[in-house]
Amino acid sequence: MQLGVCYYPEQWPEEWWADDAARMAAMGIRYVRIAEFAWSRIEPTPGEFDWAWLDRSIATLHAAGLRVVMCTPTATPPKWLVDSDPAMLAVDANGQARGFGSRRHYCFSSPSYRAQSARITEAVAQRYGQHPAVAAWQTDNEYGCHLTVLSYSQAARQGFRAWLQAKYITVDALNTAWGNVFWSQEYRSFDEIDPPVGTVTEAHPAHRLDYRRFASDEVVAFNRIQTDILRQHSPGRDVTHNFMGFFTEFDHHDVAADLDVATWDSYPLGFTQDFFLSSLEKQRYARTGHPDIPAFHHDLYRGLCTGANKGRWWVMEQQPGPVNWAQWNPAPLDGMVRLWTWQAFAHGAEVVSYFRWRQAPFAQEQMHAGLHRPDRSLDQGGLEATQVAQELLAIGLAATGDAAANASASQARVALVLDYPSLWMAQIQPQGADYNPMEITFRAYSALRQLGLDVDIVSSRADLKSYALVVLPAHLREDAALAARLAALQADGTAQAVFGPRAGAKNQALSFADGLPPGAFAALAGVRVQRVSSLPPGVVDAVRWPDGSLSSNSHWREDVQTQGAQALANFDDGRPAVLRHGSSWYSTGWPDEAGWKQLFTRAAAAAGLATQDLPEDLRTSRLGNHVFVQNFSSSTVHYAPVNHAQCLLGARELAPQGLAIWKLSPSI
Amino acid sequence: MQLGVCYYPEQWPEEWWADDAARMAAMGIRYVRIAEFAWSRIEPTPGEFDWAWLDRSIATLHAAGLRVVMCTPTATPPKWLVDSDPAMLAVDANGQARGFGSRRHYCFSSPSYRAQSARITEAVAQRYGQHPAVAAWQTDNEYGCHLTVLSYSQAARQGFRAWLQAKYITVDALNTAWGNVFWSQEYRSFDEIDPPVGTVTEAHPAHRLDYRRFASDEVVAFNRIQTDILRQHSPGRDVTHNFMGFFTEFDHHDVAADLDVATWDSYPLGFTQDFFLSSLEKQRYARTGHPDIPAFHHDLYRGLCTGANKGRWWVMEQQPGPVNWAQWNPAPLDGMVRLWTWQAFAHGAEVVSYFRWRQAPFAQEQMHAGLHRPDRSLDQGGLEATQVAQELLAIGLAATGDAAANASASQARVALVLDYPSLWMAQIQPQGADYNPMEITFRAYSALRQLGLDVDIVSSRADLKSYALVVLPAHLREDAALAARLAALQADGTAQAVFGPRAGAKNQALSFADGLPPGAFAALAGVRVQRVSSLPPGVVDAVRWPDGSLSSNSHWREDVQTQGAQALANFDDGRPAVLRHGSSWYSTGWPDEAGWKQLFTRAAAAAGLATQDLPEDLRTSRLGNHVFVQNFSSSTVHYAPVNHAQCLLGARELAPQGLAIWKLSPSI
Amino acid sequence: MQLGVCYYPEQWPEEWWADDAARMAAMGIRYVRIAEFAWSRIEPTPGEFDWAWLDRSIATLHAAGLRVVMCTPTATPPKWLVDSDPAMLAVDANGQARGFGSRRHYCFSSPSYRAQSARITEAVAQRYGQHPAVAAWQTDNEYGCHLTVLSYSQAARQGFRAWLQAKYITVDALNTAWGNVFWSQEYRSFDEIDPPVGTVTEAHPAHRLDYRRFASDEVVAFNRIQTDILRQHSPGRDVTHNFMGFFTEFDHHDVAADLDVATWDSYPLGFTQDFFLSSLEKQRYARTGHPDIPAFHHDLYRGLCTGANKGRWWVMEQQPGPVNWAQWNPAPLDGMVRLWTWQAFAHGAEVVSYFRWRQAPFAQEQMHAGLHRPDRSLDQGGLEATQVAQELLAIGLAATGDAAANASASQARVALVLDYPSLWMAQIQPQGADYNPMEITFRAYSALRQLGLDVDIVSSRADLKSYALVVLPAHLREDAALAARLAALQADGTAQAVFGPRAGAKNQALSFADGLPPGAFAALAGVRVQRVSSLPPGVVDAVRWPDGSLSSNSHWREDVQTQGAQALANFDDGRPAVLRHGSSWYSTGWPDEAGWKQLFTRAAAAAGLATQDLPEDLRTSRLGNHVFVQNFSSSTVHYAPVNHAQCLLGARELAPQGLAIWKLSPSI
Repeated sequence: MQLGVCYYPEQWPEEWWADDAARMAAMGIRYVRIAEFAWSRIEPTPGEFDWAWLDRSIATLHAAGLRVVMCTPTATPPKWLVDSDPAMLAVDANGQARGFGSRRHYCFSSPSYRAQSARITEAVAQRYGQHPAVAAWQTDNEYGCHLTVLSYSQAARQGFRAWLQAKYITVDALNTAWGNVFWSQEYRSFDEIDPPVGTVTEAHPAHRLDYRRFASDEVVAFNRIQTDILRQHSPGRDVTHNFMGFFTEFDHHDVAADLDVATWDSYPLGFTQDFFLSSLEKQRYARTGHPDIPAFHHDLYRGLCTGANKGRWWVMEQQPGPVNWAQWNPAPLDGMVRLWTWQAFAHGAEVVSYFRWRQAPFAQEQMHAGLHRPDRSLDQGGLEATQVAQELLAIGLAATGDAAANASASQARVALVLDYPSLWMAQIQPQGADYNPMEITFRAYSALRQLGLDVDIVSSRADLKSYALVVLPAHLREDAALAARLAALQADGTAQAVFGPRAGAKNQALSFADGLPPGAFAALAGVRVQRVSSLPPGVVDAVRWPDGSLSSNSHWREDVQTQGAQALANFDDGRPAVLRHGSSWYSTGWPDEAGWKQLFTRAAAAAGLATQDLPEDLRTSRLGNHVFVQNFSSSTVHYAPVNHAQCLLGARELAPQGLAIWKLSPSI
Repeated sequence: MQLGVCYYPEQWPEEWWADDAARMAAMGIRYVRIAEFAWSRIEPTPGEFDWAWLDRSIATLHAAGLRVVMCTPTATPPKWLVDSDPAMLAVDANGQARGFGSRRHYCFSSPSYRAQSARITEAVAQRYGQHPAVAAWQTDNEYGCHLTVLSYSQAARQGFRAWLQAKYITVDALNTAWGNVFWSQEYRSFDEIDPPVGTVTEAHPAHRLDYRRFASDEVVAFNRIQTDILRQHSPGRDVTHNFMGFFTEFDHHDVAADLDVATWDSYPLGFTQDFFLSSLEKQRYARTGHPDIPAFHHDLYRGLCTGANKGRWWVMEQQPGPVNWAQWNPAPLDGMVRLWTWQAFAHGAEVVSYFRWRQAPFAQEQMHAGLHRPDRSLDQGGLEATQVAQELLAIGLAATGDAAANASASQARVALVLDYPSLWMAQIQPQGADYNPMEITFRAYSALRQLGLDVDIVSSRADLKSYALVVLPAHLREDAALAARLAALQADGTAQAVFGPRAGAKNQALSFADGLPPGAFAALAGVRVQRVSSLPPGVVDAVRWPDGSLSSNSHWREDVQTQGAQALANFDDGRPAVLRHGSSWYSTGWPDEAGWKQLFTRAAAAAGLATQDLPEDLRTSRLGNHVFVQNFSSSTVHYAPVNHAQCLLGARELAPQGLAIWKLSPSI
Repeated sequence: MQLGVCYYPEQWPEEWWADDAARMAAMGIRYVRIAEFAWSRIEPTPGEFDWAWLDRSIATLHAAGLRVVMCTPTATPPKWLVDSDPAMLAVDANGQARGFGSRRHYCFSSPSYRAQSARITEAVAQRYGQHPAVAAWQTDNEYGCHLTVLSYSQAARQGFRAWLQAKYITVDALNTAWGNVFWSQEYRSFDEIDPPVGTVTEAHPAHRLDYRRFASDEVVAFNRIQTDILRQHSPGRDVTHNFMGFFTEFDHHDVAADLDVATWDSYPLGFTQDFFLSSLEKQRYARTGHPDIPAFHHDLYRGLCTGANKGRWWVMEQQPGPVNWAQWNPAPLDGMVRLWTWQAFAHGAEVVSYFRWRQAPFAQEQMHAGLHRPDRSLDQGGLEATQVAQELLAIGLAATGDAAANASASQARVALVLDYPSLWMAQIQPQGADYNPMEITFRAYSALRQLGLDVDIVSSRADLKSYALVVLPAHLREDAALAARLAALQADGTAQAVFGPRAGAKNQALSFADGLPPGAFAALAGVRVQRVSSLPPGVVDAVRWPDGSLSSNSHWREDVQTQGAQALANFDDGRPAVLRHGSSWYSTGWPDEAGWKQLFTRAAAAAGLATQDLPEDLRTSRLGNHVFVQNFSSSTVHYAPVNHAQCLLGARELAPQGLAIWKLSPSI
């Protein structure tokens, strides 16, 4: 458990550098990320590199005992590069090339930009790959930020055609797979196929899905060019990329296959304002963020790396105060930066790195707080980071090795499966204007967390053997392999599977699953979906549970034919809302919080997992033999974990924004 | 009264065809529409036709005793045609050509596409024009769907200039008619005139109106090319086109002049979600649809054909379950498909044809239900269609000849005048952001229906002699001919005329009517409009009626000078809300439901028509000697028509979604 | 105090002209504005002028004793000019040239259009510059209307580069000033710099700010070409331009430097519907307009001219009834046109000129009322204008000379500073989606007015010596000169300064002010801003005042470190909401009406100014020795000013829409 920070020496007078480095070290910071936007300073004119300033700044950090996370600067190609090669620009859905003057203006498919990206990566890697201060590498920055994954350039068009040909071999196979007989959409050759934009009404869903697959693969390929070069020139260093929140434009599991450690950028208040929360939630959590937004992503990104790197993750950018980019940007309550930092450690983070050391006085992000204000004074975030560093030392967790932390983190008994192609399918064909597959996934996750359960968010290819409960809130994609693994698990013992609506509904070409939904999951779920409804806002149906309590359902309903499943909860018209079939559970609709908790309480019990109804906005996380209790509410709460042995930090009484860390008795 | 279905043999294995046909016949289906999207299968490569599959599919249907409605496939030109002639594409308001990959991408004004359209129409007509199975033809599909009437191509620009020259002869005449002295908008030649797009602020209203007239005429011309060819090669068959709901982009009366029968596509739930209903109405009618949405269009399209074809209409596509294209797509309650089908027959439909026989498993409409599910199992809609077929046989109405049905249908004593140019005028200059002329028309219609009145919706050119009450809710266009006919009717007897606000306000060039509104209707209405207000949401004025009851007014208000008219209801400031002048009634504002009912109750009484306040969401329709009672509410209702003799179907007690058919005693 | 009217002889039959002129004179109208949209009639074909009709129309007006305000017709270049020089067109952010067919389609930066503008201006000025009827000139019409200040043409691009070079001399200076090291946004030459559009995410704020400065300067330069020509050919006549409401796209103080008198176009109902008022306010003020919308602009435009012309202003276009261009367009209540006219005189208008004499029957503005209806009948606005003319005569105010009126008007003791660059800064970086600097300025102004205070709205360069209270609600720009002047004033006596949040926060390049906000105002305000929050809707914090009363705060909050200031009102968490530091007051947030009134009551008291809590929607204005009492409410109110001597018009009892004019006793 280490702290880090993002730092931009090129933005500050050189005479400040040594002082900055000394204060970082004094504060307890260990890692410093640099240079991800510095191309115009590294190569001010084409082919002429200016390494001197960067050499000196790295040396300064090194001298202070800090470890450097070095970056490739490819997210911000300079103007001279754009002017020399306008074809490198991404092109929007209207055919307009994106302009210079912010960032991420490149097209992932551009061969010339890929060459430029390799060239600058190689130059930086050759220069610093063996530098003793360099501990890790970050490729580019936030792939896809500002919705830049999809580009409609000529290069993308050509790349897409080649990608399709490689996938389908013959255009007849494509026509059949997509169902192009519909509306005379048949093609006679791959060269007739354009990107799915500009159509009179919605473009063909299979066409759109394959374009998103292609675009995701282009991100993977772009990243791999860099990781290959970095591994060649800087062996033994971790290579990472910093992912974002609620971002689904490419398959993160695929990109992570080329990384040693997954990192992400955690902005709880910004995500609370800019995503799908209700107005009331945006108000309620304006200054704390929704407690499960960071947790959800921690658990998601912890699940990204595989093999020897299983469970390895960092927060690369931690919100240190108000940001600039959300619709509204409140300051966090005092104590939140500390609480968020501990929350990340509680979910197994190796490093929590703040963005940024000092607030920039200029340009687009000048209203984004740092640990310091633009005038070098320490801001609230800096105070709280210092406190965390001291607490880590005080309770001996700073010493916790990475491997141990990861191992402990992987003790969750609940797996939630998140599958990017399934998200794309629901985004392409939501069927109801507010059907957001990320929201239903998040709502299910939040209910699990409110029941005190730790959760691993995993890919559909993950090994599920260690889990007692597997939850698939939005797994639209027909997935025979996963179905087979779940069946095998259930045959072996008590593993429970919970399916959200639309599970298995679509085949790989975004057509109906064979034999109607839930397709490959039908034998498990014991149901066959006969028709579906998306429901306008305000159409809310009551659901009655065996104990007489009510929950409510909105957004979505399915009428199912039972094929072995028993109704557990019913709508007023007698149709089943939730069914059980052996160790499998199926929700025919979109439950509210009470509904998800009813369902998970039962499924967890069947799985042998204890649940509890935690106080409102209190969360617990178990990491190895420790339990971290986090109070996101505005009230003082009293809470101690079952079987606690010792309180390392805090107490049973938790003030708002309060934290307690308990050691459990060894029997647990 | 016959049932039909839309069928896509090209989308299914040929080995299913015979079974499909046999089951259609067994279910009681008589008509099968085919091939409207099959161009890529009929002509897979330029000039090479593949008739074999289509020959066999028609033969299969024929062998089962089914009658085929054959279509021209021009709504979906294939990719090879687009690539060979990109100028055929429609162009949007930003100058961007619409892309291939959905449908309706052609420009109505393209000479080359008109030639292609004629070529493929002739090919299909020659092949099947004399086929014994072919009972009727449908041209293209849903002209204008996805807002494709307006195109800004070079062909459209040239066509518009020629159209203007033909209309105005000299550009000075155009300048004068439009009032181009305003803002120096004068032209020196027709060649200076562009389409009315891309302007800094709103384009000139007369310019916009003429562009919409031109575009409407282009649809008429495009359609006529096909109907001429079809009549030549397939004499004796009905030629139709399937119109849409709440669609106003072209003048349907003009297109219908070239048809034998009008058909339309009825999707009550989709229209309820996607149009102007309030949020509360969208919730309340989510699973039944607003009861008057299908009725309104039945009555509208029944009024489209003229002469020997007067009153002839079908439902070509009847919603059979949830659809895919509305913002939200709930499933209809069980019983609604039956109720909608009977409702169409009650309004005089010759045929109700379901869209579609079987839900497609792929492509854009895969979430659109059919009578069967994609796996061939019978869906709820199929069950209810079967029930209707059996009921038709049981009560002997299947045998009802077309002519008889039409004759009976035309017994309505209330005419509501719907005038497309008037709708365009209000759309171009709404004056209040939510002034929707289709909404006020629909609200007036709904109030009439809630009073138990049958309504014919007619064009402004219709013969009005048989009507006791004529309603003009949104007839903005100055219409001296109609005024004269109304005056003559009133001189002859008791015919009452009800004018909504803005009646007669605009001349043909969308300028002020001579002598101020209501222009040509001034002598009838006995008022002169002195000023108007459009009212923001929440500004609602009370209206007091002679019986002391109150209604409320929103959206619009006019201050009028009375010129013979007497105030019937007044606003709180004493200004008249509704006035009467002999047999004419004028509403100065936009009444709520209570206001319309107050007004129509009085006007109907003056016309000698009995009204009743029907139970909420109950509707009745008289057809010849039958009364059809339809319960759209969620409660059981008891109702029987006055002077009933015999109940053919159902009973006095109507459960939700219930239907009763009564025969009246002969005295009526 | 004189009345005027806007008149379009070219739109009416010549035989009506003499009658129109006679009735204008009889009605009491003195000024007639003509010809601002008449280019196509003045020059029907290139280079061939048709002066005859204009000569005759001016002669007709002259003969009736009317004074003409002549215009340059450059807001509406005719089609032949556009076709001969398409490069003159403005270009939108997508690179699309704006089309002909409405107005204002030209680009301010186009050299060829500037030449055309000079040519037609010179032609008109030569023809009528010395005409005895011509009393004044208006340049163009409503610069920037329909958001036409920003253009992205090639000419603008070239102009911007030259403008930047002139400002920064070297591109390194620009890179440093903007902070282009951020995101590698550095340029190597001015020729690399494009307009700030089309970027992937927000363009650089300093780049955007300089583009807005450049665009504003282009308006100034465009206008100056005309004013130079007019002064040359028509010496001794006033030159003006008619500004708009809530319009901030160029710096009005800069344009006014070339004018003799400022005029503006006052549409209280339209502005009420189309700007930032809440839904409830839009309803409440639908038929009266918000009382402070006209007042705010009267006081703003009174402050525009300087030197010998200080305080000179007119209403060039006064709303005479319902308009056509707002989202909703209610008719004003009877009496409002009179009340608005008197309100303008009460704020010191020399002339109130109605738009327009007669409603046009055609084209875009046909639903815009005039003093007469299209059929020549007198409309309500005409009746009320007549009444005002008679009242002016009756109480002897028509004779009031311009100079006297202006002098009296400048007796306000409260100055509100409005700084266009500050508005641009907040618009470019609002930081909260609903942070509208014009709204907070208006809300502060309205609170001052509700306390009975007269206000001068002045530029940051204004001489502030005569003011006891200076208010800066949204002065984001660091302004050392203003700070120094305020400090000097305070050193001299009791001048109080009230700073809204964000005061002085940004330097000239829209970067952080040195030493953190409020930058140059820090010594005055005695605070240092440590962090800021923008607050989503519904997050409202209570503010407690010394008297125990509560107000509430929304939109924005700052945490400040006090550097001498004392907290006056606090949030519940104890942080200061409002602070006082000697004669300076600082609001850390966005107060509600109660909060502003609490703050201003105290600051006014400290300044020695008496305040009163006026009855709701009552307003008073003092002009010289007169007090004008205006009742915008829907209730009868009793009110008389302190120290009144005589009631010239009206009475102590004011009915809704009522007005009273009092003479004060000489002691005051």
